[in-house]
Amino acid sequence: MTALEGQLDEVRRALREEGTAPLDTVTGPLGAAEWAWVLVRLPSHELREAALRLPTALLPEIVAEVPPRTAAELAEQLPPPQGAALLRALDPDDAVDLLAHLRAGAAQELLGRLPAEQGARLRQLLTYPPDTAGGRMTPQFVAVQPHLSADQAIGAIRQAAREAETVYSVYVVDGGGAFLGILSLRDLVLAPPETPVRGLMTPHPVSVQVDTDQEVAARLLVRLDLLALPVLDAQGHLVGILTEDDVADVLEEEATEDFERLGGSQPLEMPYRRAGATLLFRKRLPWLLALFVAEAYTGNVMRYFEDTLEQVVALAFFIPLLLGTGGNVGSQITTTLVRAMAVDDLGLRDLRWILGKEFAVGLLIGVVMAVIAFGRAWMLGVGMDVGTVVALAIAAITIWSSVVAAALPLALRRLRFDPTVVSAPFITTLVDGTGLVIYFLIARSVLGL
Amino acid sequence: MTALEGQLDEVRRALREEGTAPLDTVTGPLGAAEWAWVLVRLPSHELREAALRLPTALLPEIVAEVPPRTAAELAEQLPPPQGAALLRALDPDDAVDLLAHLRAGAAQELLGRLPAEQGARLRQLLTYPPDTAGGRMTPQFVAVQPHLSADQAIGAIRQAAREAETVYSVYVVDGGGAFLGILSLRDLVLAPPETPVRGLMTPHPVSVQVDTDQEVAARLLVRLDLLALPVLDAQGHLVGILTEDDVADVLEEEATEDFERLGGSQPLEMPYRRAGATLLFRKRLPWLLALFVAEAYTGNVMRYFEDTLEQVVALAFFIPLLLGTGGNVGSQITTTLVRAMAVDDLGLRDLRWILGKEFAVGLLIGVVMAVIAFGRAWMLGVGMDVGTVVALAIAAITIWSSVVAAALPLALRRLRFDPTVVSAPFITTLVDGTGLVIYFLIARSVLGL
Repeated sequence: MTALEGQLDEVRRALREEGTAPLDTVTGPLGAAEWAWVLVRLPSHELREAALRLPTALLPEIVAEVPPRTAAELAEQLPPPQGAALLRALDPDDAVDLLAHLRAGAAQELLGRLPAEQGARLRQLLTYPPDTAGGRMTPQFVAVQPHLSADQAIGAIRQAAREAETVYSVYVVDGGGAFLGILSLRDLVLAPPETPVRGLMTPHPVSVQVDTDQEVAARLLVRLDLLALPVLDAQGHLVGILTEDDVADVLEEEATEDFERLGGSQPLEMPYRRAGATLLFRKRLPWLLALFVAEAYTGNVMRYFEDTLEQVVALAFFIPLLLGTGGNVGSQITTTLVRAMAVDDLGLRDLRWILGKEFAVGLLIGVVMAVIAFGRAWMLGVGMDVGTVVALAIAAITIWSSVVAAALPLALRRLRFDPTVVSAPFITTLVDGTGLVIYFLIARSVLGL
Repeated sequence: MTALEGQLDEVRRALREEGTAPLDTVTGPLGAAEWAWVLVRLPSHELREAALRLPTALLPEIVAEVPPRTAAELAEQLPPPQGAALLRALDPDDAVDLLAHLRAGAAQELLGRLPAEQGARLRQLLTYPPDTAGGRMTPQFVAVQPHLSADQAIGAIRQAAREAETVYSVYVVDGGGAFLGILSLRDLVLAPPETPVRGLMTPHPVSVQVDTDQEVAARLLVRLDLLALPVLDAQGHLVGILTEDDVADVLEEEATEDFERLGGSQPLEMPYRRAGATLLFRKRLPWLLALFVAEAYTGNVMRYFEDTLEQVVALAFFIPLLLGTGGNVGSQITTTLVRAMAVDDLGLRDLRWILGKEFAVGLLIGVVMAVIAFGRAWMLGVGMDVGTVVALAIAAITIWSSVVAAALPLALRRLRFDPTVVSAPFITTLVDGTGLVIYFLIARSVLGL
């Protein structure tokens, strides 16, 4: 353990030097969370070594704190009996996360070593895809019958408390398991002891289905300011709850994926720190190749206008500047819109006013850029006529790029594609070829070639 | 109200058509949250009209649900006595958010109409910057003295419950207001009634200072899986708490700002829907101009190599393709790294291995791109020698771009700049000029010009 504790000190010191990390502000003791913090920062081989030397008593808590892929790496190092013991000690939602990230053989091996009932329960939870409410929920909630009094309900909660994820939201179900309503521990504690639960509960509260997308469920929980969201199966039975602490994880995970897509890469689906070079290569290459193919036709455009270019080589000077500006304008708009769509601020029916607004902004920016571009051309001493071409072209490209970047994310959603594929590189590429055509057409017409 | 209710139906219908929005999955009644949903979607002039026609009883709840800027727009429409009544009905943290977004005169007017004590309290809260723990916290928490029994503490909570933001976290303070420890309602309910609070509390738990950055505090709360985080002043007195529902707001807000910065724009600091054309213009133009200036030197590079270009005009065909690929590679890396730094997965001390990993990935990708670029040059019929130049140049530019994009965000953090300024447009611009130099130097040397 001393090597690990040395590591811990080193991490603390480094964080203090950076002056940016949360641990700096921590004044109290930490425990499992702090171990998790260190483990996530270890390279794979040190992590595997550390697995066997962690304090067994803290292990379930530590495993619950680290990301599931790291948890799986830790669990794979343990001898199967210890692995199964760890699994037994975990909350079902953490156990399922861990199992979903183990190799299939290892997961089956561990499941086989569990008591039959727990094994069956985990197998059932494993059937829900990990990015749905069913895959995120915990099946450990406090349920009471509607005819109990407030006092009896508190007694029932006392008994169930050790197992439950939260006791603050209490769920009311009938004898058959059908979901009737919800009430809070606060309501129970504040009510006269004899009040029946039925009179205290909110009937038919907001709920989601097991197959509801995790991001949709998370945003619903945030928007409605709930502590937990009931998750129902197709028969309307309460099968689990999604708690507020899952929400931050879901939103962070989804935002990270959107960042990676907007940067022009497939999502890594793991922390950057743990992603190896070959994974990065595999996630990035497909988009680079697609963009290469899409960009390759700029060569054809240039060859088509080869005569124009040979007559006025100075036109070539401004190509990177014009295309760069067009790409920058498009990337500003696209990134803002895709994010607004992700946090559900915009939808399809907003297309018209968005186009109008972005056209107006593009026009304003285009005029400013034209003036400056003319000045820049004059500084390079290329003559008034080329300067005029460059000024007109930058205005036209800015407006064109604005309209394309505004329309594309919404058009993609209409076609049921994920709008985050309209990354900054994507819009830059799209504007490059069309921007060249605009530039050379303006050049030909102004210069009379 | 009928116009608004028609609007509500329209929103519901549109959302159902899109098939994407959370309300689709809502099976229960909504109330204030649903009104908020509609109001956020209204253009400014309709919002102002709606303000006077909302049900007065629901108004505080609605105002607490909408973003502070929208809340301020609503409040500005009300006659001052009604505005002051609204302010009195709000929780202090919502009231402060609203006041911070009013024109200074309007805020003073409303504060003057409040009871002296409440006015003084809000003025005190307004002194904390909005993006700190102090600016986000609520001063309404449940505090008990350490000598109370569990049963007495529950009694005290019953009395304080109506005012408090949460009763699930209970704070222990001594007679002088010094913060001693924390315990949960769960602990109190489950403990034998006579147990003294001092025996149940966790002493000296994790806490933050009023001036701690809101993002740091939010991530700490998530990482440690807390329901609420105590906020202390410089004297160690408990002045407020930051609750879990603030966290999702903070993280979403910070992620949106990072998206906008990475797209090459200054953060809008309000929903896109509410941002007018002139605001968009003002937020975007400065970066576009800076990028224009940075990109403008590509013209000098091209003019410097004018002779080379005149001798082999075909070299110009590949400029957009080479620069585009370099920009795409850089934007993939930068976006991933900046996000990893934001969620605190990476820090300065990771620079060396990141550079090593990205160099390796860049090398792999560079080789693949070189083969494909050679094929593409052959297809355009530009000859083997130009093909060789293009292949060598794309490999060199890919590797160069990888190293620059990997080093820059970390270097900026060392210089205490926000690494999110390294947007996709920024890295594209930086790679454009240097990429041209690489291209023409390779061309001169291979073609013997």
